Amino acid sequence: MTISAFDHPLLSAFLGDEEAARHFSVEAEIEAMLAFESALAEAEAENGIITRDAAVAIGVVLASFRPDTTLLRAAAAKDGVIVPELVRQLRVVVGEPHGDKVHFGATSQDVIDTGLVLRLKSVVDHLGLLLTETVLRLTSLEERFGGRALTGMTRMQPAIPIQVADRVNAWRGPLRRHRERLSEQSGRLLVVQFGGAAGTLEKLGDKGPTVRAVLAAKLGLGDAPQWHSQRDALVDFTGWLSLLTGSLGKFGQDIALMAQGGADITLSGGGGSSAMPHKQNPVKAEALVALARFNATQLSGMHQALVHEQERSGAAWTLEWLLLPQMVVATAASLRLAAELAAQIESLGH
Amino acid sequence: MTISAFDHPLLSAFLGDEEAARHFSVEAEIEAMLAFESALAEAEAENGIITRDAAVAIGVVLASFRPDTTLLRAAAAKDGVIVPELVRQLRVVVGEPHGDKVHFGATSQDVIDTGLVLRLKSVVDHLGLLLTETVLRLTSLEERFGGRALTGMTRMQPAIPIQVADRVNAWRGPLRRHRERLSEQSGRLLVVQFGGAAGTLEKLGDKGPTVRAVLAAKLGLGDAPQWHSQRDALVDFTGWLSLLTGSLGKFGQDIALMAQGGADITLSGGGGSSAMPHKQNPVKAEALVALARFNATQLSGMHQALVHEQERSGAAWTLEWLLLPQMVVATAASLRLAAELAAQIESLGH
Amino acid sequence: MTISAFDHPLLSAFLGDEEAARHFSVEAEIEAMLAFESALAEAEAENGIITRDAAVAIGVVLASFRPDTTLLRAAAAKDGVIVPELVRQLRVVVGEPHGDKVHFGATSQDVIDTGLVLRLKSVVDHLGLLLTETVLRLTSLEERFGGRALTGMTRMQPAIPIQVADRVNAWRGPLRRHRERLSEQSGRLLVVQFGGAAGTLEKLGDKGPTVRAVLAAKLGLGDAPQWHSQRDALVDFTGWLSLLTGSLGKFGQDIALMAQGGADITLSGGGGSSAMPHKQNPVKAEALVALARFNATQLSGMHQALVHEQERSGAAWTLEWLLLPQMVVATAASLRLAAELAAQIESLGH
Amino acid sequence: MTISAFDHPLLSAFLGDEEAARHFSVEAEIEAMLAFESALAEAEAENGIITRDAAVAIGVVLASFRPDTTLLRAAAAKDGVIVPELVRQLRVVVGEPHGDKVHFGATSQDVIDTGLVLRLKSVVDHLGLLLTETVLRLTSLEERFGGRALTGMTRMQPAIPIQVADRVNAWRGPLRRHRERLSEQSGRLLVVQFGGAAGTLEKLGDKGPTVRAVLAAKLGLGDAPQWHSQRDALVDFTGWLSLLTGSLGKFGQDIALMAQGGADITLSGGGGSSAMPHKQNPVKAEALVALARFNATQLSGMHQALVHEQERSGAAWTLEWLLLPQMVVATAASLRLAAELAAQIESLGH
Repeated sequence: MTISAFDHPLLSAFLGDEEAARHFSVEAEIEAMLAFESALAEAEAENGIITRDAAVAIGVVLASFRPDTTLLRAAAAKDGVIVPELVRQLRVVVGEPHGDKVHFGATSQDVIDTGLVLRLKSVVDHLGLLLTETVLRLTSLEERFGGRALTGMTRMQPAIPIQVADRVNAWRGPLRRHRERLSEQSGRLLVVQFGGAAGTLEKLGDKGPTVRAVLAAKLGLGDAPQWHSQRDALVDFTGWLSLLTGSLGKFGQDIALMAQGGADITLSGGGGSSAMPHKQNPVKAEALVALARFNATQLSGMHQALVHEQERSGAAWTLEWLLLPQMVVATAASLRLAAELAAQIESLGH
Repeated sequence: MTISAFDHPLLSAFLGDEEAARHFSVEAEIEAMLAFESALAEAEAENGIITRDAAVAIGVVLASFRPDTTLLRAAAAKDGVIVPELVRQLRVVVGEPHGDKVHFGATSQDVIDTGLVLRLKSVVDHLGLLLTETVLRLTSLEERFGGRALTGMTRMQPAIPIQVADRVNAWRGPLRRHRERLSEQSGRLLVVQFGGAAGTLEKLGDKGPTVRAVLAAKLGLGDAPQWHSQRDALVDFTGWLSLLTGSLGKFGQDIALMAQGGADITLSGGGGSSAMPHKQNPVKAEALVALARFNATQLSGMHQALVHEQERSGAAWTLEWLLLPQMVVATAASLRLAAELAAQIESLGH
Repeated sequence: MTISAFDHPLLSAFLGDEEAARHFSVEAEIEAMLAFESALAEAEAENGIITRDAAVAIGVVLASFRPDTTLLRAAAAKDGVIVPELVRQLRVVVGEPHGDKVHFGATSQDVIDTGLVLRLKSVVDHLGLLLTETVLRLTSLEERFGGRALTGMTRMQPAIPIQVADRVNAWRGPLRRHRERLSEQSGRLLVVQFGGAAGTLEKLGDKGPTVRAVLAAKLGLGDAPQWHSQRDALVDFTGWLSLLTGSLGKFGQDIALMAQGGADITLSGGGGSSAMPHKQNPVKAEALVALARFNATQLSGMHQALVHEQERSGAAWTLEWLLLPQMVVATAASLRLAAELAAQIESLGH
Repeated sequence: MTISAFDHPLLSAFLGDEEAARHFSVEAEIEAMLAFESALAEAEAENGIITRDAAVAIGVVLASFRPDTTLLRAAAAKDGVIVPELVRQLRVVVGEPHGDKVHFGATSQDVIDTGLVLRLKSVVDHLGLLLTETVLRLTSLEERFGGRALTGMTRMQPAIPIQVADRVNAWRGPLRRHRERLSEQSGRLLVVQFGGAAGTLEKLGDKGPTVRAVLAAKLGLGDAPQWHSQRDALVDFTGWLSLLTGSLGKFGQDIALMAQGGADITLSGGGGSSAMPHKQNPVKAEALVALARFNATQLSGMHQALVHEQERSGAAWTLEWLLLPQMVVATAASLRLAAELAAQIESLGH
């Protein structure tokens, strides 16, 4: 199971990020789905949609539920989503008389999208920390070497002298703006998804919005009307991921170019070669460029997925699943590599 | 000269937008460049970088300057940018003794990027107006038909009944968020570019930041340190353009699907066929989808351009010029078409 | 009308190609469309679909027809294509009794797609010549400098010595394979499009295939069943365009890197700077990289357009028009720039 | 380890392909790498580069070698490739005096690229078989329903009647051309990679080409000069993958549209919903569209990777690894789903 470098047992040490990857494990996915169902039952009981007894029965089962993954896998092939089968299994375990109160008024997309957002909440925290760390490391470079001279390079030609601080500012400036952007976006991104079959919460009568608000609060997410076919907040977030990896790609490209020139940088810990023992390759710098171009590529598909027809598009929605987790891990890896690369810089400038 | 549909004498009536296109005419480009040079001379005189006499001489020339475009064209082929030749021509006209004070301390990228931002300022206003109009038209649809029933469609299958208002909300919701996003972005986007040869304003001594701030104020732009190699604000803006066309693409796709089904919509003014006289094709709806997928495609290239090496990358910068103007006009056209399509809707729902 | 750099009065001298652009002028487009209608009338007369008198009347009109472009423009906005209006105008001029025999049994897509293929036929010849010229220039570099040494560079680090000939081979090898690929593709690409309203040539009874074959022969195109919704040959061709610009982009990137290092290359005629008089920027090399990344971007949209629903998709088809002409001109420009860059190389290696 | 849907324990049943995935397992990768080293030792012994004894010693070790993957993983993080460490481990096991004859004159890229091509050879066979099967299933649909009527649809509007056979031809036609294209490409794709440190096989004196030819023959691959920085054959192949999924995406889109309309198709085995028991969603049809748009997205990145600087680019090469395996599995899954979808069609037309 190693189609993606991020899942690859060996390459993921180079291009992946273990913590980010954890948020996309099947275990994490299912855990988030069960958290949704659990909070839903609670919210519905608190608002008289289902009885307290039903909520208790459901909660007891969810607390220790282990799905039959073989059946889930077969269901994925048939339904395109695992939720109908997951709910069926839950209902069987809850049994009479409360089984049919599991997932009451909800639809697969509520579970899957909310489950994703729950995990993105942790992702956003993780990326925010890595981003802060990378900014600090760049500031450290500025403190150590900022006053030294560097040959400014424009259009691949020596220009005039600049300072190392000028180059570091060009690396760090965008990262600060990315932090700003993330805080602007978070409120729109980290919201519950709850709309029912076709987005109208028709089974909850006039209590839909109230139940949704309670559900959101229990999950620690913002409340918002359903966004089944309105994918802009998710897509905007992947744009943020790519802005970030793009900025780190410029950092990597600059380091690689300095390493090629040889004059203005000393790096430790470069990559070896099977053919040339003397080699110290700036592999992390190159990886940053690759990950930048990777995310720039994926982003196009996420934007294609904005054309999400009607109340739910299987085609557009499935496309998101093929792209988004990879963009997240590429970004975490990029931040990790940038911090490691910065730590490898023994000297900048002259 | 009709490589691009947006420039095409015939197709641009379908896929283009005249006002947006005006901002990208050669006349508008050069006008913005001259506005930069003019404001720069003023700002520099006010700060003792050049004499008041020099600023006056330069201003007089700029007020009525008509460049020799044949020479500009030849220079584009040789230099990749027209600014060195434009400045040479200006210096000749200003003549002794003040000619060498034209473009003092600046570089081509300052002129070109600031010129672009000046035009984007007008573009942002234009798009904002079109966006507001489109939201109003959708609200009008909601007022007229909102309470009617519609067959909710999920995964290309009839689901349960919803209301027309639910569908209209899915079209309009993202547009409101896009307005929010634009106001978040504008401060970072609409800023002056002024950094000199390699971004350090080395010719202005310690007066660089002051002159830049005065320059920005005179141009009605925000002040910010140079962003020669930091392209994130521009790229973020193109992401906004694509989020918008993506949302309008979903609107178009939904209308086209309803038009195919025939039951829940009546459209006027459809496109004719050369082979089938009875046809009323939802061509504007289809165009919205095409423009959405177009911008989703272009965006990838803008993100590739984030990998902008060193103090100035001709490769990455040139790539932006090949993409950004088109994305702007595609977005304006998309808003125009969405408003026209909304106006063609004679009836929704049942 | 300068949204695209390829149409830009100034920038097109840098990034465009005049001859390729000519094939995409409105004049060339309409000329090709009229050539289709003319050959169609002839082919139909020869097969008894229309009378000889009708064909003669139509031919006389077509030979000197100048369309009312104002009406064509209005029709583009309404129909999304100009052909229904063009045919209407032709029918009026031909008048009674033969007017209704113009465009008999055909549809807009037959005219537009065949018209495109006719122009691509000339494009393919032009690109083939430029490709041969570029290969010759590279061979000339090999002859002049091939035996000299070069520092082989791997992973942005000096590796071991190689010869200039090795580097030139890496530039030239793909170009030879691209010529091979083009000849493999041409038979599938340069075919007539003729299917009528929904692809069944229903108005020609059992004479459809025969008329189509005669039509193809008259136009100097291959015969093939209609491909209204089967876009693979066109998309494959744009893939070829991007393979070519990608290879030339590697050439440009290598020259730029050598120019930055300074040791192994001497270039003449570099681009100037408005701020640094000493600069000789390798602008053509950078442009090659930009054009490569441009085509790599566009190609994604052409592949999205393969999802061309039913018998004709306005959305997918329109997307092609937004992309393909640009890819052609980018490729011609890329070949032009590569030849010019090769000519600027005064010395390679040591 | 579930970042990619193709690796996902549950979703891969929907979107993946087990056989294709096997070719990208770590086991398959390492096996192919060892096959290279084994054949290399043999080829070098046959040409007097190393002694027969050395080749025997190496062969014995390779036959049962199990790498220490923990060390390989650490090496991936440091070197960006696992080969230097793999070779180090092999040399240790082979020991004195022959250890240093392992991987003689080769470089990591020779091992990795050849290993990929060896697996692509099997992939091409697998895809070829699936392609033939899909063509047969479509032909079966033609046989069963070809003569029935279908409402031709153009621009999302009913046009004129066509036959089911016409629609099936539009699905099948491109698949036949894809088979043609694959056979045109295979000779250029399935070739050995052998160039040594910087592509000159400097350690083999004048025996380089001979050893390479023998190596290729032993591996069942074509012989060709090294293509370390010439990625066009690989990229062309990914273009083929996307042409194929694009054509299958059109098939899926057409089925989904017919399923939505309801009149002209009966499908069995549709996907269920957690909210609406009556639903039979055409999930495989939608998945085909998603996979088409996925490959169209990825292809752009592969084309960006054509800009592969100098003798070896870590950035461009690494980008390939992030994209190509996914495109292969997406294509295999697409063919699988298309065959399954065709089998679900109980009736077409009226």
